[in-house]
Order: sequence, then structure tokens, then C-alpha cells
Amino acid sequence: MRWSRTFLPTMKDTPAEAQIASHRYMLRAGMVRQNAAGIYTWLPLGLRVLTKIADIVRDEQARAGANEVLMPTIQSADLWQESGRFDAYGPEMLRFEDRHGRTMLYGPTNEEMITDIFRREVQSYKNLPLNLYHIQWKFRDEVRPRFGVMRGREFLMKDGYSFDVDEASAALAYKKVFISYLRTFRRLGLSAIPMQADTGPIGGDLSHEFLIQAETGESEVFFDSAISSDPAFTEDLTGDAELEAAFDRLTSAYARTDETHDAALFDQQVPTDRRVVSRGVEVGHIFYFGTKYSDALGATVQNAEGKDVAVHMGSYGIGVSRLVGGIIEACHDENGIIWPTEIAPFGVGILNLKVDDADCTAACDRLYAQAQAAGLDPLLDDRDMRPGGKFADMELIGLPWVITIGPRGLNDGMAELKNRKTGEKHDVAIHAVLAKITG
Amino acid sequence: MRWSRTFLPTMKDTPAEAQIASHRYMLRAGMVRQNAAGIYTWLPLGLRVLTKIADIVRDEQARAGANEVLMPTIQSADLWQESGRFDAYGPEMLRFEDRHGRTMLYGPTNEEMITDIFRREVQSYKNLPLNLYHIQWKFRDEVRPRFGVMRGREFLMKDGYSFDVDEASAALAYKKVFISYLRTFRRLGLSAIPMQADTGPIGGDLSHEFLIQAETGESEVFFDSAISSDPAFTEDLTGDAELEAAFDRLTSAYARTDETHDAALFDQQVPTDRRVVSRGVEVGHIFYFGTKYSDALGATVQNAEGKDVAVHMGSYGIGVSRLVGGIIEACHDENGIIWPTEIAPFGVGILNLKVDDADCTAACDRLYAQAQAAGLDPLLDDRDMRPGGKFADMELIGLPWVITIGPRGLNDGMAELKNRKTGEKHDVAIHAVLAKITG
Repeated sequence: MRWSRTFLPTMKDTPAEAQIASHRYMLRAGMVRQNAAGIYTWLPLGLRVLTKIADIVRDEQARAGANEVLMPTIQSADLWQESGRFDAYGPEMLRFEDRHGRTMLYGPTNEEMITDIFRREVQSYKNLPLNLYHIQWKFRDEVRPRFGVMRGREFLMKDGYSFDVDEASAALAYKKVFISYLRTFRRLGLSAIPMQADTGPIGGDLSHEFLIQAETGESEVFFDSAISSDPAFTEDLTGDAELEAAFDRLTSAYARTDETHDAALFDQQVPTDRRVVSRGVEVGHIFYFGTKYSDALGATVQNAEGKDVAVHMGSYGIGVSRLVGGIIEACHDENGIIWPTEIAPFGVGILNLKVDDADCTAACDRLYAQAQAAGLDPLLDDRDMRPGGKFADMELIGLPWVITIGPRGLNDGMAELKNRKTGEKHDVAIHAVLAKITG
Repeated sequence: MRWSRTFLPTMKDTPAEAQIASHRYMLRAGMVRQNAAGIYTWLPLGLRVLTKIADIVRDEQARAGANEVLMPTIQSADLWQESGRFDAYGPEMLRFEDRHGRTMLYGPTNEEMITDIFRREVQSYKNLPLNLYHIQWKFRDEVRPRFGVMRGREFLMKDGYSFDVDEASAALAYKKVFISYLRTFRRLGLSAIPMQADTGPIGGDLSHEFLIQAETGESEVFFDSAISSDPAFTEDLTGDAELEAAFDRLTSAYARTDETHDAALFDQQVPTDRRVVSRGVEVGHIFYFGTKYSDALGATVQNAEGKDVAVHMGSYGIGVSRLVGGIIEACHDENGIIWPTEIAPFGVGILNLKVDDADCTAACDRLYAQAQAAGLDPLLDDRDMRPGGKFADMELIGLPWVITIGPRGLNDGMAELKNRKTGEKHDVAIHAVLAKITG
């Protein structure tokens, strides 16, 4: 993409309303613009990151055997009255009437709807286990939306639902998602620590949150540092036995947020030198709630003995739009964002120092075409601006690599290659510079 | 994908509520399920088609130089009050109050919002032309939703907006979209005929609808058969002059829907043997409306003479979810859907005639792996069912090719290859069957 032909409006000044780094940088880098309190438009740079995250989530869901569907944003209130949550859910749920006076709502979550779809289509244990997910916009009418996309009102979430014939297989389904989430976050360039959680308005027996560490995180977190070095964070597990062992290791070590923290237990269970007290951002949350919704909605299957039993369910969420903010909280410096390679909006920036120099522009155009052909998804800064502003913008938007070409270096066939994360700069022959990136 | 591990609930009987072929087949093939009047969940088979259509639209938008953004579904009423459409728009617009009593709406279209984003970010003609689009769910509270996804309430649309400094460049932008839409529909396996249209609630000076022919189409269409053979439907145009010539040819020939039809003019302009009177489904609609919204919202840019002028705009829609139904209306027979290859949910079906025969299942599994490796995106029907039901389901879901393997043919190393569109069947050696498909 050429900067001059896309819509990438950066800002020099920090917007007054932005209190945390991710909010500041998402506005300054032209990733999002607010349309109403907690409601945002994703501009091209932001949408690229959002799409890459969603695609990785999708890929890992497929690997874990989940099936993608897409439920609507608007739901009828009927099912929520059937489950009892229509009255129980607070004012965060946006309710309204359609033109015929029927009560509708903008879905904040989909347990009722997916249970309804299941009960209409599946009658036998032979069709189980089943895991259905979607990636869809949700709305929660937060009383005080803040922190940009981190606590917005309209947000993109992956929510998945598992269906099993009994508690044992439902527990295995839960553990499989637990482990697949570690792999998903790893592919996003993150280490997300699973913590024991309250079940809240979803209800149920078992729940874990996944948090990434960030100084500005909304939650205080307390955990045993031994967790972070568990092989489950870096290796793929094969077979149910290995998976269950990893689940047991990770969930028996102490890891809680301030919501469930027990100071005495923390001191007792974790040796002093392994006690981590830090802050984190929640990016995933999983629940096992057994037959709570299937009982309420009458979702049964015939088991192997020919008996109708309520189906056992869990639900599994990843905050896709929230992750964009969360990743920036974890990955930035005083100059801007530092994208993990996997989800960077572009693979490399090419900075033309002097666009009115025909040779310099020709060299940049050639390199741009080569980078495209190499699949590096380059962004060419071809704007007619002073170098200072262009360097600052490149730092701000945080691409993993930046190649700078100016008339002086060009005379010797040289470009400058900079690594955004380490800050290292090297002069490299132009013909060899892309190979330095692709390795 | 293995049929046994996905969620593809087919139905033998025709649902009573479905009046047209696409609605019937989308329900029977397990593509969608209705959640409330005009509101649907997309199951895996339907979502695959929807995603493929959206990806082709996206690809062609990028080729045409448009930039993808993503605006929210929920909008504040403020901008609509500024443009005057809040009162003018009928009860199709879903309006409600948030918890703080602010009037909000579920966007039926985005002229106001995109004009607001533009006016906040762009000040100079140097940043023009600009074309921003998104693919997002819309809501129109139809009084009587019907025909499945063809006239639903929540629907997926691509809507794009062009910004130009004057009328001449805005006209060129309009023509470019016009021609790019022909190419987009061609890639979807369709011939969509552009017809002169009323501008309706969008307003403006110039408008065309794109209709695909289908017996069950909602509109009666009248056109000169010479249009269909215009090279613009089959060839890529290069350069603005060629593009403008094609636009002039296509828009000067008679092509109108019942809304704008003029019988006397039709008889006068079109020779008897070239008069086509048929029915069609609208799949795209484009508008040039000049400064209607930029005047109302004060969206100006500085032109080359340093003068502030209202920006000239057009808007351009493709009904992405509606296309799924429209394509089925145009492409089906009495047994089910006949997908164009480009958007088929799977490239090939592999039908295992006898899953309890170990050799037959091994042969199917091998072929399935080979088809995956060849990028054919196969669906393996590995369900334990009678052959009759499996054949009927395969016809119903309409994949371009079906390979059937049974114990009898397998003894001679043979499979049956069937082309869904032509109905032709051939016995082919299993080792050679995939090459018959890939050509």
C-alpha cells in the first residue's frame, strides 16, 4: 500500500480523552475514530490488525475442531425470557422494540441463541461432541465507556459453545479449549496466563480468565512465576493425556486476579521468590456451566442408552477488538506501537526520504514492488513531507521493520534497515535488504 | 471437512414458510436458520459462501483503489438530524435510546457517518480522490420480511463512498465503480445488467441498479439484448478513455426495471427482436448525489485555487447476503443448488457409499487427503446413511463436482465423477480423478 493512496490520518498531539497508551496510540496512528461514546470506526490500519487477529483465532478454532457459524447481532427477547436472563441481565443489555412492538435486544452474548439452534437440530449423542463459534459484534451499554476499544460498547468477540453428552466429555472439551487458547495467544505474539475466575452472569461451575501482563492493565494479578515457564506455553501438545496433564499443572498453580485473590493462600502456596504481583488485561474467558441453559431451554439428546439427557455446555470467549488495545498496552514504547510480527498491519515500511528526487523515488518503487512480490506486505511512505514527520509516523505505527532510502545512501546503493523492537539500525546494500528481513 | 464433524443439518421436506427457491434451498441445505422474522444465523455451509462472496468483493474493491474501513452498526442520531434524514427516513430505521437516554439507531446505510469521518480528517484536494468502503451488517425493519435472506431485516452489505473535489472527477469515480461492479459480478459467476434507476431515499442525480436475471426475481426488467454482449461484461478495460466509452455504451442502451420503465420509449429505442422482458434480482445499486450530504454536514476541502468547496460524493452498494439468495435463484434445478465454482462452499464432494467397508473408507480418506493437498477444499460425506439420502443431499447442496466411491467400483480402482451443472457422469480411475477436476 502507498501511504498517499490509503486513508491513514496520523495525529501529532495526544487527544485529551485518551488516558492509556493503547487508546492514545490507536487514535494517533489513525487506527480508529470514535463515532459515539464507546463506539468506533476502524480505519484501514486498525482494520488490518483486527482482521489478522480474527484470522488467527479462526485458524486455531478450525485446528481445535470447532465449526464457524455467524449468529445475528439482534435477538428476540423470547429466548432470554425462557432462560430467565432477560430480567437478570443488567442495563448493559441494550433492549428496544421493533416496529411491531416486539421486544428485541442487541446480543451481549449468545448462550440462549446457540442453545436454541442446537435443540432444533441435534437429537442424538452421535452428533456430539460439537463446538460452534462465531466472531461477531456485540453490544454492552457500559455506563461509562473508556480506554478506547478496551472498554467500548460495540465490540468484536469470538464466542464459542461446546455441547457434550455428559460431564466427563464436557470437561475434556473445556480442557481442549483451554489449551488451544494458549496456542492462539502464542500465535498472536502473546503469553496469556490462565487464572481462576468467577463465573459471573454466565453462571456455572468452572471458569478461567486469560490475562496478558501490562502495567496499565485493569486487573491486579497474582501468580506463581513457575506457570510462565510451563511447556504448554511454547510447545504443541499431542493426545488427550498430555493435554489433561498440562491443564492440571497450569490450574493447580496459583494464578488469580484481584477478584478471586486469597492473600493467605498465595503466601502459603507460592514460595517468596516465585510470587508475581503485577497488572493484566483480560483477553479471554471460558466457562463450564453444565446444564444451566440446556435445562432452562429443554436442549436434550438421546444418549447411548436411549435416554434423553440435558446436554452439557461450556462457553469460550476471546475479545478480538479488545486484543488490539491489549496488545498495544503490552507492546509499545514512548514513540509508539511495537507490533508483534504476526499481526503487524504491514510487514515492512519503506520510507522515501525525498519524493521529488526521481532516482530516489524510482529506487523506492522498485523495492516496493520487490517487497510485494516477496509477500512482505509493504507500506510505502511516498508522502511529500519533511523526513522528521515521516520518521515519527513510522515509529508511531510500529511496523516491525523500516527501510529508509535517501539520495545520499542511494549513491552508494545503500539503504538503512531499522528494527522497530530493538531499535537497531544498519546500512545495508539495497539489493540485499529484503533478504535481511525474510532471513 | 468431514460431514460427520461439521454442522450441516439438511432437511428432506420443504419448509412451509419458504415461497421461493433460494429460501427453500438455503433452509433445506442447512445454510441458514431463522432466529426471528427476517433475522438469520448462518450455519457453516452458508457462511462459507457468504465469506467467499465478501472476499471477492473485497479483492475487486482493492483492485479499484478503494480503502476498506469498518464502521459500527450502531450510530448516534445526531448526524442524521444534521442531514435531515432522521425524520425523513421511514419506520424501516430501527431507533432506540441507550441507557443515558441518547437517541441511537441501527445503521441502515452510512452516508452521514462517512461524511462525518471525512470532514474531521480531510481538508485538501491533495488527498483526493478517495473511496472508502466497508462490509458490515445493516438493519432495516421491513414491515413484512420475506424470501429468506433476500428481504431480511439484518443483512450484510458492502457500501462504499467516493469523495472528489469537483463534478468531473466525481463522475469518473462513479464510472469506475460502475465498471468494477461488472467485473465483481463476473467473478461471482454472474452477469448483472446495469439499469437506470430512481435515487430514492439516498437522493441525487444519477443512479444505476445491477440486476441478475431470475424467473422469481422481484422486479420486472426490460432491456436491449445488445447490452448482454457488450465486451465490458467479459473483458478488462484499460485506461479511463476505454472505461468511459464502455460506460456510455452501456448506459445509452435501454435497460430499466418496472420502476422506471417507459413502454413507448422501449418500443421506439429497441428493435423488436432485441427486446428482452424478464425478471431480475437487484444485487447492486450506485448513486451519484453531488454535494447533498457534504452541504448538509459542511464537508469541504480546499481546491487547487485555495478555495473551500463542498466535496462531491457518490455511494455504491452490493448486497452481500442478498447475493447468496440471488445466486441460488439464478442457479438451481429441481434437485437443489448449482453453485458457480468461484463461490461454491466446497470445491468437490467425496461420497463414501459404504462407511463400514474398511477398504472403501480407506480409499475415501486417501482421496480426501489428496484433494485437500491439491487445494480443492473437499467435503467428505462419511455419514453412516443409505446411499439414496447421501446422493440427494449432495445434489441439494450443489457442489460443482461429486466423486462417488463404493466397494464395487473400488475393486476395479474406479470412482464415479459427476458434474453437478451438466449432470454428466463418468467412471474414472481413482488415481486420475482429481486431475479431471483441476484440468
